[in-house]
This record gives sequence, C-alpha cells and structure tokens, in this order.
Amino acid sequence: MSAEEQIDNLSKELEEVILGEDGKPLSKKALKKLEKEREKEKRKQEVAARLALEKAQREANVVDYGLENYGKLPMNQSQNKGETEWTRVRDLNKSKVGQTVDIQGRVQGSRPTGSKMCFLVVREGSSTVQGVVCVDSDQVSKQMVKYADSIPVESLVMIKAEVVAPEEEVLSCTVKDVELRVKKLFIISEAVARIPFSMEDATRGEEQEEKEGVTSVRVNLDTRLDNRVIDLRTITNNAIFRIQAAVGKLFREFLDTRDFVEIHSPKIIGAASEGGANVFEVSYFKRSAYLAQSPQLYKQMCISADFGKVYEIAPVFRAENSNTHRHLTEFVGLDLEMGFREHYHEVMFLIGELFLFIFAELEKRYSYELEVVRSQYPFEPFKFSDKPLRLEFKDAVALLREAGVAIEDYEDLSTENERLLGRLVREKFDTDFYMLDKFPSAIRPFYTMPDAQNPLYSNSYDFFIRGEEVMSGAQRIHDAAFLEKRALECGVDIESIKDYIDAFKYGCPPHAGGGVGLERVVMLYLNLGNIRRTSLFPRDPRRIYP
Amino acid sequence: MSAEEQIDNLSKELEEVILGEDGKPLSKKALKKLEKEREKEKRKQEVAARLALEKAQREANVVDYGLENYGKLPMNQSQNKGETEWTRVRDLNKSKVGQTVDIQGRVQGSRPTGSKMCFLVVREGSSTVQGVVCVDSDQVSKQMVKYADSIPVESLVMIKAEVVAPEEEVLSCTVKDVELRVKKLFIISEAVARIPFSMEDATRGEEQEEKEGVTSVRVNLDTRLDNRVIDLRTITNNAIFRIQAAVGKLFREFLDTRDFVEIHSPKIIGAASEGGANVFEVSYFKRSAYLAQSPQLYKQMCISADFGKVYEIAPVFRAENSNTHRHLTEFVGLDLEMGFREHYHEVMFLIGELFLFIFAELEKRYSYELEVVRSQYPFEPFKFSDKPLRLEFKDAVALLREAGVAIEDYEDLSTENERLLGRLVREKFDTDFYMLDKFPSAIRPFYTMPDAQNPLYSNSYDFFIRGEEVMSGAQRIHDAAFLEKRALECGVDIESIKDYIDAFKYGCPPHAGGGVGLERVVMLYLNLGNIRRTSLFPRDPRRIYP
Repeated sequence: MSAEEQIDNLSKELEEVILGEDGKPLSKKALKKLEKEREKEKRKQEVAARLALEKAQREANVVDYGLENYGKLPMNQSQNKGETEWTRVRDLNKSKVGQTVDIQGRVQGSRPTGSKMCFLVVREGSSTVQGVVCVDSDQVSKQMVKYADSIPVESLVMIKAEVVAPEEEVLSCTVKDVELRVKKLFIISEAVARIPFSMEDATRGEEQEEKEGVTSVRVNLDTRLDNRVIDLRTITNNAIFRIQAAVGKLFREFLDTRDFVEIHSPKIIGAASEGGANVFEVSYFKRSAYLAQSPQLYKQMCISADFGKVYEIAPVFRAENSNTHRHLTEFVGLDLEMGFREHYHEVMFLIGELFLFIFAELEKRYSYELEVVRSQYPFEPFKFSDKPLRLEFKDAVALLREAGVAIEDYEDLSTENERLLGRLVREKFDTDFYMLDKFPSAIRPFYTMPDAQNPLYSNSYDFFIRGEEVMSGAQRIHDAAFLEKRALECGVDIESIKDYIDAFKYGCPPHAGGGVGLERVVMLYLNLGNIRRTSLFPRDPRRIYP
Repeated sequence: MSAEEQIDNLSKELEEVILGEDGKPLSKKALKKLEKEREKEKRKQEVAARLALEKAQREANVVDYGLENYGKLPMNQSQNKGETEWTRVRDLNKSKVGQTVDIQGRVQGSRPTGSKMCFLVVREGSSTVQGVVCVDSDQVSKQMVKYADSIPVESLVMIKAEVVAPEEEVLSCTVKDVELRVKKLFIISEAVARIPFSMEDATRGEEQEEKEGVTSVRVNLDTRLDNRVIDLRTITNNAIFRIQAAVGKLFREFLDTRDFVEIHSPKIIGAASEGGANVFEVSYFKRSAYLAQSPQLYKQMCISADFGKVYEIAPVFRAENSNTHRHLTEFVGLDLEMGFREHYHEVMFLIGELFLFIFAELEKRYSYELEVVRSQYPFEPFKFSDKPLRLEFKDAVALLREAGVAIEDYEDLSTENERLLGRLVREKFDTDFYMLDKFPSAIRPFYTMPDAQNPLYSNSYDFFIRGEEVMSGAQRIHDAAFLEKRALECGVDIESIKDYIDAFKYGCPPHAGGGVGLERVVMLYLNLGNIRRTSLFPRDPRRIYP
C-alpha cells in the first residue's frame, strides 16, 4: 500500500462516524469490541473461503494423493524383470491375514458403496476373491475408488493388497475366509470390447436358476460356442477341461506301466480306408488324399511290426452329416491295440481295468473339479464295480426282451435300447459301467474275428457309460488270406486296402484293441448332455469357427 | 504150408546127401554142428533184414515219434484260454538254466547242421535268442528238425524249450548266456510272402558294413519305407520309436508337474491362418476348410481363456513342397504356451529346462535303446550344460563374422550358417544345445512382440540341437489393437484372422510359448540324418503310402 493510499484510508476512517443502535456515536470501548468482532468474522470467512476452495479443488480432482497407486500400465513388452513374489488367488486363506500380497487376476465385477468404497470380484483361473477399495488418508484416494469401479469387466489387473478377515464370510467368492484391502491397482490388459454375456450368467447352476426364477438369464450353447474364449473362462469350463486332460493322463499312466508304446500314425492317408464312406478329402499337391477316420489300420500295422502293445491319442475325422448331441466331425481318439498270447479277453479285461482305474483316480485326484462341475450341472455319482462287469450280447437281448422289447437275436441295438439296457443293468448289477461282449458278426467291420464256435457272433465288444457306448473294440483278423476273404464277403474294395492286407502277410500276432472317444467319455461321466460341452472348439457339420 | 508141400520138402531133404570136405558123408556130430551154424546165420540175416527194413521205414518218414510236438496251429480265434505262463525272450538269462519255458517269437533265421540238428534265431521285440532243435530219442524227431528248418522266415512261433547254457557265448543274439533246447515248436502265424529284405541286412551297423565290405547288402531308405511294417521290426527301429515315445512322455511329465493343462485344439479350421500359404484344403460338406498348420491361434486363445499354461501334442500339417532331409508335410508338434507375470524369459528358460530334463532322463532311463540305435547308427554322445545356454542373435552374428562369414545385422540364418554356428558354439561353450534369443522382428511372424528398446529386434527365440533348429518361440502380442496394427504392417488379411484378433479384446495376460517338432528332436538327438527315420509312416510331397 502506498503512502497516499494509507492517507486516503485514514481520512475515510475519520470521515466515517460510527453510530450505535441509538444513533449516538459509539464509545471507545464499544468501538474496540466491534473491531474485535469484525476481525473474528473476517477470520471465519477466510477459513470458510479456504475450506470452500480446498473442497472445490478436491472436487475438481486437482489434488489426488493416490495418483501413484492406480492406472493402466503400458503394454507388457517384457520391459522389466521384477523380483515380485506373486500369490495365486487360490492360495489365499486365513493363514495370510495381515500379510501384504501381490496378485494378478481379472475384474469379474465391481460394486461401489457411496463414493468412498468399492467392492471388486477378482478371478484367477477357477478361484475368486473379494477386493475392497476404500478411501484412506494416504494411499487410496476417492479418485482411485472411482477408477476401480470404472475398470471394464474382464480386464486383467495386478493388485497389491493387505489380506484381512472379512466381517462375515464372502459367499459370492470361492475364497470365503479372507478379503483383500486394495492398496495398489493397475490394469495389465484392458477389456476393450463389451463381453457378450456375464460370467455370472454363464456360471449359474441349474438349481440356482430355479431359485432365481425368471430374473435369471440363461446363456445358450450356441452363444457360448460363438464366443468360446469368454465361455471357457467360467470356472466350470476350466474344471471340465482339466478333467478332460486328466482322462488322457490317466489313460497313458495306466498303459505306460504295462509296457505300451505311444505311437503317432499319419492322419493324411493315400487311400480312403474302411470302404471310403464318411471320409474327408484333402487336396494334396495336385492329387487327392484323405483324413484318417481312425488309426485302426496303422495301429494294427504296428502290431505286425512287433511293437507289442501300442496306444495313440490323436484327432479322428468323420465326415458324417450327423447333428446329434453325441457326434462331432473331429474328435480325440484314445486308441489302443495289443498282441495277445492266447485269448482276446486278455485285452478286453485290460481295457476294462483301465476304465475302472480312470474312474477311481478321477474321484481321488479331481474331487475339486468334479464339485465345481456338479454345482453348475448336477449329476448323480458314478457307480462302478471292483471288477469290470462283462455281459454277452445275447444276455442283453434277453434283458431287453424281459423288459418287453421286441428284438431279433442278431439285431443291432438302437440308441434307445442302449439307454434302456443301461438302466436295466444299473438296476440289476448296480453299475454305470459295463462291457458287452460277443456282438453279432453282421454288425461289425469286416476285419473283426468271428467267434470260433458260432461265426454269427464275433470276438468283439462295446463298453458303456451311463447307457451310452464309449468304446468299440474287437479281436482283429491277423491272417491275410482270411482277411481278404472277409473283405470280399463284406463288399470292401480289396485294392483300396492292399497295404493293410499286405501288412499281415509276414506273420502277425493275434491281437485285439479298441477306440475310445475322449469327449464322449467326459460328457457321459459328467452327464453333460451335449458333446460340444467337452470339446474345446467343437466341429460339426455346421460349425468350423472359431 | 500145405501137406503136399511138407512131403515135397521131406523128400528133398532125404535126397540131399551131405558130404564133408573129404567127399565122405558127414558124421552125425558134424551134421549137428553144421545145423547150428546154419541157424545162427539165419537169425543174423533176419535181424539185419529187420534193421534194414526199419531203417528204410525211418528214412521214408513212415514213423515219426515227434509228430505231436510241431506243426502249424489253426488260426487263433481265441478258442482256448490257457494257463500257460509265457516267458519273454528278454527275460531269458542264466538264472533260468534247467527250467522249461514257453515263449513266443519270430523265426528270424534257421541254419541246419546235418540232418539231426537245426539252429534257429528267435526274435521277440528287440531281443533275440538261439534255439536248438536236435533229434532225441522220444520228442524231437528228424522230421521235426527238417520242419524247423523249413519255417518261412518271420513266421511267428510258440516254443516249449529247456533253457541250457551254451558251449560258448551266442554272439549272434542279444541273449548271449543261454540258448533254448527246443521240445515243441508250433507256427502261430505263418509268413506267406517272401520278405523284401532280410532283418540282418536291415539291422547291420555302419561299422559292421565296413568290416564285411562289398559282400554286405545295404537296404536303402525308400525300400525300407515302402515295406515299413517289415522295416519297423528291426531292433533299431523298435528302439528309435521307444525313444520317440519317451520324448513325448518326458515333455508331459515335466510340464504336468508345473501345472500345465493338456489341450486338444481342432485340426480342421474355417480360415487359412497365418496368411494362407502352405495350407492343405479340405472338402467340408460342400464348403472349404483347411488343416491347421499349428495350434498357435488356439493355444493362445486358451491363454486368453485363462487356462494359464497349456500344451498340446498333435499332428501339424504343412503343404510345403520341400523334399529335404528335415521336412515332412505332416509331423507331430509338441506345443506349449504360458501366461507369464512379468518377462518372457520366465517361459523361455522353462522351455530350456524342459529340454535339459529330456536329455538327462533319456540317458538315465533309455540307455539300452540308445545303445541299440548307436550300434547301427553311431553318434557322438550328446553334450549339454547344467543350465540352458542363452545367446542373443547379435552374438551369433558376431561369432559368424569372427569365423569369416559375411552376414548383415538383421539377416536370417541360412541352414549352412546354422550348422556352422552350432560348431562354433560347441567349440566355445561345449554344448550341443543352446537357445538363441532376440531375433530380428522382420524375420518373425506378425504376432511376435517387438523388443521394448529396439523394435528391430523381437522377444523371440529358437532352440538348436547339434546345429539345427528344433523349436521356435516368442512372446506374442496380447493387445488386440497392436496385433491388428502389426498384421496390417505385415500385409496379413485382417478379415481372415478376425477370430484370432477378437480373442484378445477381452483382456489377455502377456504370454509366450513355442513349438517343437518331435521327429526333428529325435532325428537330431540320435544324429540319424533323415527325418523319415523318426516318423512311423512319413509323409512328404511324394509319399502318402503306406
């Protein structure tokens, strides 16, 4: 303030006559009091103004003390090798309360509570945990809470958090006894597209659906398959495909200890085997080739080549125009073939034991996965006996006749009769798994060995799970001349199977084997009702995408 | 003799006057002596005649006391379930001397010694034993010996025999310390066609060939492959394919303990991925489909679907018109893919450790098979370090330049330079296995993640065995927008890879992986020189049979 201004102010003060309520000029004391009140008021206003400004600033996001603790990371190009010890969501439990952990997972959903708190469901694989983002004085700002709520569903995040005991059990997550007090929250990979259905809808169990009634949304199978990458993320699908992998693993485990050799036979073949029907044609450098319908011929050639016992796990191709719940045009075949010493039952019972091993070990080692699947798709526990049950085809015919079915002695079983038979066998023998032996020759392939006593029957068998066929097998004809004779009788073009017949001209052990459809075993064991649920990216006459 | 004949004889006797040497009639005593001598002579002649008759009869095969002990069995239709305990040829050893055993095997060859003895070489799997068929007084007849020698080579037989210690070691068989004194010998399955080459010729080692010189016959690869069933019977091939199976088994074993999930992705795909070159077309219900060139897209989709870590062992199809020692149109891919936390080296080093595990366990568990292969195809022991050796592409360029090779910074390695590099690395680091990291971006597929500092390099790697590439891998681009950008830059048709790009729009962990050619690993590890030797029924542009 300049000297002139000061003089001006002083003059104004002198000119101003301060009057009391009575109109008389105020006393010196009263003046002093008034002055004090004025100053007080001024300070009050100053504070209010400052507070208002601060409030305005906060609301205008000018100050954010949590800024360093959230955001979107640059694309990972392996810029850094960190020393971080990552904790898996499934490993979170009470023993970790009080610890600070680093986790990675997807934001499956978020739910804000006022402006100071937000709940997250964070999923990693088949486990979910509740995250709580709550404003505190130094790390988590209101802005960070708002950000947490804005993260697109299914984005992948990394979180640093304190493990705390929740006030009550977290019913909505698989991790129920702890939750995470989030301190840092970064997006690793952002979901940029809107997901076609919610994980909750895609994972809801049938029982839960009934409870929730009309309000719940069911995701139909075609929508799932069209968006398979999202669909496969559900904890149920995660479990289904772990069980599928387990079946293959147990199959190999059992056979490896019995001296089987794993083989890899060609899928592109020069001649359409087994008659040429239902076979896909391939353009092969200006000529035609075909996709193998099974490794049948090749695994038998390996027996003739003295491999002794072989198995193969590989794709199998069938150009059948069948749009049923149990047919695929491409599926995974679990095939095996074995030279035997005297009788094909050496092989048949070995395969029976193999199935029992798989059933028993699934229950032992994969109880968690089985429970996860069961909670979405309920199924009755699988019944099986200590020793594989063997029935003959003629016993099956008798059982069906007893139940009032009109069936000829050598007539094939319809799908309907197979199912009925499954129920009858379950009632009588208390098992969901059995082996049906001695099928009529007429309904088996030409290379099936006829029964020694009655050639109208053959040394062949099917295995059943919950009343549906999962495996077909037989003793094969190992004598070249007899094989040729049977091929001719069955109208098979000899020229097209020349390599096959020739394979037996240099001596071949008697042998038997079988082929199992992996997807079918898993579907029936888990009672999933449609084979597309047990194929990663199913192929049928109408579907070759994605 | 009639009465008249008797009278005639008597008259003749009376007429006959027996005179001594002096011309006088003999005395009564002398007559008696003469009579005795005559009778003695008669008896002698009778015995001789009987013996001659018996001899003639034996020689005319009229009597065969061994008849029950040899012959051809009727075709096995599982007529009988025996109680026989079968002994495997490979289990025959000194501890069994004096025992009677039952075995099954093939007659690999026979060699008669006079008419009373015949040596057989009997083979089961990769083991051979000497059988001796030798005439004895009650079981083994001369006819049986003759029969043994007449059995067509490669026929399958069952033998009951006594285990005996041979006079000297049997050098020509794998079982050297015992031989079999054959008591029964039956053909189970007769070789009705003449085999195109002998097992001895097909199994002869290179060293042995040199020793035997011009007299030995070499079976060329095409002849082998045209008659693959016979060729695969050699103990060497038997061992090669046991080693092939072992590589797959060890691959899974290592990954299973690290929480990988085995997947089965479709081989029939709707769109020709990766640009559409070198892809086989399939007729698929009036439209076109293609055979997958790799599970690349699908294993990545599984990562986006939260499977975490996946592997697949399955056929891979390449319509490349390459007729080289290391290309097949169909081979077995060992593929893996893994989401990582921070840096792709987490994945690359895991794959490095996987290879070291396979090498170490092959030596531990399959030393017998390795020895069998080595004796036909000699190779230097495989050298590898405790930790996988990692070199960068620019180090490789520097090494090659030091060795006088003119090569640009970002130029791809020729097959020749790869081999030279392998030798240089072996000299410098004493290993036949190494990982080459940080390849130039320009020579890798569009979906490869560029290096963060220098985008002319990328986060990609190749693995080498004995100077040839066996695996190619990289960090993949997990960001949909960046992936699309890179595809456009590389001239890839975006529409054809829409499903692939879309898979990353819902958030995806950063991930890396790789693909291994099974046949190539086995070929290079065993130094077999041609990939067709490690494929069961190889497929190349010219071969789709058998």
